[in-house]
Amino acid sequence: MSDASILETFENAHPNRDYVIEHTFPEFTSVCPKTGQPDFGTIVITYVPDRKCVELKSLKFYLNGFRNTGIFYEAVTNQLLEDLVAATAPRRMTVVTKWGPRGGLSSVVTASYEQPVA
Amino acid sequence: MSDASILETFENAHPNRDYVIEHTFPEFTSVCPKTGQPDFGTIVITYVPDRKCVELKSLKFYLNGFRNTGIFYEAVTNQLLEDLVAATAPRRMTVVTKWGPRGGLSSVVTASYEQPVA
Amino acid sequence: MSDASILETFENAHPNRDYVIEHTFPEFTSVCPKTGQPDFGTIVITYVPDRKCVELKSLKFYLNGFRNTGIFYEAVTNQLLEDLVAATAPRRMTVVTKWGPRGGLSSVVTASYEQPVA
Amino acid sequence: MSDASILETFENAHPNRDYVIEHTFPEFTSVCPKTGQPDFGTIVITYVPDRKCVELKSLKFYLNGFRNTGIFYEAVTNQLLEDLVAATAPRRMTVVTKWGPRGGLSSVVTASYEQPVA
Amino acid sequence: MSDASILETFENAHPNRDYVIEHTFPEFTSVCPKTGQPDFGTIVITYVPDRKCVELKSLKFYLNGFRNTGIFYEAVTNQLLEDLVAATAPRRMTVVTKWGPRGGLSSVVTASYEQPVA
Amino acid sequence: MSDASILETFENAHPNRDYVIEHTFPEFTSVCPKTGQPDFGTIVITYVPDRKCVELKSLKFYLNGFRNTGIFYEAVTNQLLEDLVAATAPRRMTVVTKWGPRGGLSSVVTASYEQPVA
Amino acid sequence: MSDASILETFENAHPNRDYVIEHTFPEFTSVCPKTGQPDFGTIVITYVPDRKCVELKSLKFYLNGFRNTGIFYEAVTNQLLEDLVAATAPRRMTVVTKWGPRGGLSSVVTASYEQPVA
Amino acid sequence: MSDASILETFENAHPNRDYVIEHTFPEFTSVCPKTGQPDFGTIVITYVPDRKCVELKSLKFYLNGFRNTGIFYEAVTNQLLEDLVAATAPRRMTVVTKWGPRGGLSSVVTASYEQPVA
Amino acid sequence: MSDASILETFENAHPNRDYVIEHTFPEFTSVCPKTGQPDFGTIVITYVPDRKCVELKSLKFYLNGFRNTGIFYEAVTNQLLEDLVAATAPRRMTVVTKWGPRGGLSSVVTASYEQPVA
Amino acid sequence: MSDASILETFENAHPNRDYVIEHTFPEFTSVCPKTGQPDFGTIVITYVPDRKCVELKSLKFYLNGFRNTGIFYEAVTNQLLEDLVAATAPRRMTVVTKWGPRGGLSSVVTASYEQPVA
Repeated sequence: MSDASILETFENAHPNRDYVIEHTFPEFTSVCPKTGQPDFGTIVITYVPDRKCVELKSLKFYLNGFRNTGIFYEAVTNQLLEDLVAATAPRRMTVVTKWGPRGGLSSVVTASYEQPVA
Repeated sequence: MSDASILETFENAHPNRDYVIEHTFPEFTSVCPKTGQPDFGTIVITYVPDRKCVELKSLKFYLNGFRNTGIFYEAVTNQLLEDLVAATAPRRMTVVTKWGPRGGLSSVVTASYEQPVA
Repeated sequence: MSDASILETFENAHPNRDYVIEHTFPEFTSVCPKTGQPDFGTIVITYVPDRKCVELKSLKFYLNGFRNTGIFYEAVTNQLLEDLVAATAPRRMTVVTKWGPRGGLSSVVTASYEQPVA
Repeated sequence: MSDASILETFENAHPNRDYVIEHTFPEFTSVCPKTGQPDFGTIVITYVPDRKCVELKSLKFYLNGFRNTGIFYEAVTNQLLEDLVAATAPRRMTVVTKWGPRGGLSSVVTASYEQPVA
Repeated sequence: MSDASILETFENAHPNRDYVIEHTFPEFTSVCPKTGQPDFGTIVITYVPDRKCVELKSLKFYLNGFRNTGIFYEAVTNQLLEDLVAATAPRRMTVVTKWGPRGGLSSVVTASYEQPVA
Repeated sequence: MSDASILETFENAHPNRDYVIEHTFPEFTSVCPKTGQPDFGTIVITYVPDRKCVELKSLKFYLNGFRNTGIFYEAVTNQLLEDLVAATAPRRMTVVTKWGPRGGLSSVVTASYEQPVA
Repeated sequence: MSDASILETFENAHPNRDYVIEHTFPEFTSVCPKTGQPDFGTIVITYVPDRKCVELKSLKFYLNGFRNTGIFYEAVTNQLLEDLVAATAPRRMTVVTKWGPRGGLSSVVTASYEQPVA
Repeated sequence: MSDASILETFENAHPNRDYVIEHTFPEFTSVCPKTGQPDFGTIVITYVPDRKCVELKSLKFYLNGFRNTGIFYEAVTNQLLEDLVAATAPRRMTVVTKWGPRGGLSSVVTASYEQPVA
Repeated sequence: MSDASILETFENAHPNRDYVIEHTFPEFTSVCPKTGQPDFGTIVITYVPDRKCVELKSLKFYLNGFRNTGIFYEAVTNQLLEDLVAATAPRRMTVVTKWGPRGGLSSVVTASYEQPVA
Repeated sequence: MSDASILETFENAHPNRDYVIEHTFPEFTSVCPKTGQPDFGTIVITYVPDRKCVELKSLKFYLNGFRNTGIFYEAVTNQLLEDLVAATAPRRMTVVTKWGPRGGLSSVVTASYEQPVA
């Protein structure tokens, strides 16, 4: 079961500058809730940190937590975005999920977040 | 014969956020109405859902429904866009059809839809 | 329905020399006899002609004849080899069929023929 | 000799929508007027149709008509654009010609047309 | 838990000819028995059938059965070969497993079987 | 009209050693004798010279000589081999011709020559 | 230990024009401060020079100076930017660092600087 | 020694239209003024002609003229731009020079010119 | 300093069958003994195990041990082969080292071992 | 002028084992003796050393020595082989030279040497 509470962060040492961090994870797998068959995807997370950066090892464990979770493409994408925004409160973040062919159809889902103006 | 009524949808669980879904289908085939010979293409459907997302298995059956339909490139592209807009009422949608060489000429047709402002 | 009788040949003008002809057809489609769903493949035919070469336009029509035929990968491959050997009586021939992913599995089937020593 | 009068068109069935048609022809050849040696290029024609679309077979014959014409890269590009604009009266059109190396130099020429506002 | 008994076969309709069948599965995953972390690989199975061919859907379910199995690369490769040889009694078979990087090291393991001469 | 007499040669300065020369020409064009439409191909000539090497500029003019010749793929390949063997009397020579898609079918023809043992 | 003082510059001979210089270094290595294991990356530095350009040999030695330094991806990126801005006072500069997979996750970090308006 | 006076031009036959000409030369070589060792690069020249186009053969000879000239990357790029602007008085021009690795560092320099408003 | 004693092995569970294990390590670095500058390479180790397989984590630490060792390409290749043969006593082993460009020259060194017949 | 006497060697530390060294040099240039125009090629030297290995820096200088030498493709290839065999007395050596397109024709020349049996 995926668990956002295992996401760890470290303090951004350069909060005075907008800079971009991108992590790509080609080994994501979850389970189709309709057929029970596994899905395989590549996850790309891009963000501008504010006060916190996501720690890589905890990110990997968090992503691996979906391994036996039944969840649709659209839901994975939005949940990753929401969990990572909750954990890091970034200035901007985009999550892209790219899925291998099912019945000949390959899919990509993209969701973004922007920090509201204070 | 292609049949838009077999397109199924499911409710978009994240209507508060504009996000993008892209489906690529490299196994599209129809028939040239002029020569009776088969055409082969790749279809790319990209959309921002509003209330409804298109269900993948029904999309595949819908696309396979063109297999023995005589139809020109431009007509396929516009019909796919119209059928999918009718079925899902998206905020935005683009359909791209990419066709293998005929007489040395390869073709790409691109049509887009934007939801009218309410 | 596929029909080998439409295969036409022309006389090999260089029968004194073993040389190799290869035809690649990336637009093959047939139907899975189990699921009724379409299969898509690339066909590669390689042969050393003896007295006859296969005529390209008739080869294309012959291959297009499988469009609505329910047939397994292994059967297509062996039938193509047998029909083309029957039509051209080559010195050697190999048929390779390469199939797009189904359930994540991509397949390639390869069958060969060698003219018996007289 | 190239001959624009052989270009045929068919009526655009979707004039209410701006959509894009792109044709790529990797088998263009003409003759260098200076050296008499053949030139080889790829032609990419992209346009938004208004009332008329260019018919593919006639486009191919039109392009093949340059085979023994002595003409410079810049002139080919502008003539293709002018002939195709004259034949189809599009809303927008771009012609790109990409030429193989001559004396180590490869060239690309790009010309565009936009329909004047009525 | 992986289970070879779910492998189904169908009769080889062309036993008089040696021909080659290759299946590629880029979505294999198992678990490292040492670290408990998931491994991801591509499996390539190549064989010359004798009396039996492996049925594709059952092959997919069999391969998916390793999803939560703790097993080393070398063991997976040899077990796949032994299970598939037991199920199909082929004339020849090769199993290749290709694994994504761990600690910077990518691995490929290849094992083969040849039917003993009767 | 193609004309083998324009092929020039120069003396091989290293006849004591078997070495290999390969020339690739991606700009070959001839005419289909059946349809009158142009064909486009890449020619690869590989040989071990004996006493003579083919001069490059004359080879280019010779190949360009096929521009308006009506000739089938198999005939081009065998004629190139025969003309070049006649001109250079090589120890070994192979001619490969690779042709762009016609009706979806791409073709490659390969013919070889070996100097008879004296 | 990395040492910005070894960075040398030469005078920009074309200060009247904004132009762009990009240097790519695929052989960067530092040490993960958490695990003590080496990290490997590609560095891309892009800038518009003002009065000074960075000298290439000194840049290489400066980058090699990180070889045994324990430092996180985000810190490397920001330190490279700050050291190079300090050394060259450019009109604009961007530093991109691209890192090989660790635990399946590949990372890219991008930081930019713009000269304040005088 | 490079010599801009050998650049020839011909009259632009389509001055009423802004169109783009791009020439790519992968065979540029000059000499590093510091080490005396040869540098190798690819030059990309892109421009919108006004009254004059650069003639290709003279462009090649001009570029070959740098073969034994000692000159830095930044200087080559700016000199090419200045010489070609002087020769052709274009509406816009960009020169990109891409250099092979030296000490592990690959470089790209880009300079542009825009015709002043009359 | 590199240290072969840290190489660990585990028992080959399938000694009755010759099978092939290949490990690729794109993150190898050592130091040029002549210039003191770092070298970067990719290591490919391929072997048929007899009684022992090399353990991956220890292999990684062993390879990382060359980080600050001054050693030539040829010496690295032969030492890796000798250390790994000593550690695993394989039936056959090949070590390939591929090195990035130095002064424009890229190098590959390949050394092999075969178990003497008992 | 090229000068084989500048080739330096170092002693092969592993003469008891046949192993293979390959050097690739993509920055070779010489001059066409017929036209005076520069030629550009990639050189690949592969050898099994006996007592001596070629030193890389001297190899680079030796190859750069052809920069202003007028010499044909076939002659370069055979001379490189002869000079390097003379300098290193290898067990086996192959020199491959790959040349960019001239008049549309690209060329590859391959020459080999094998040490006579003592």
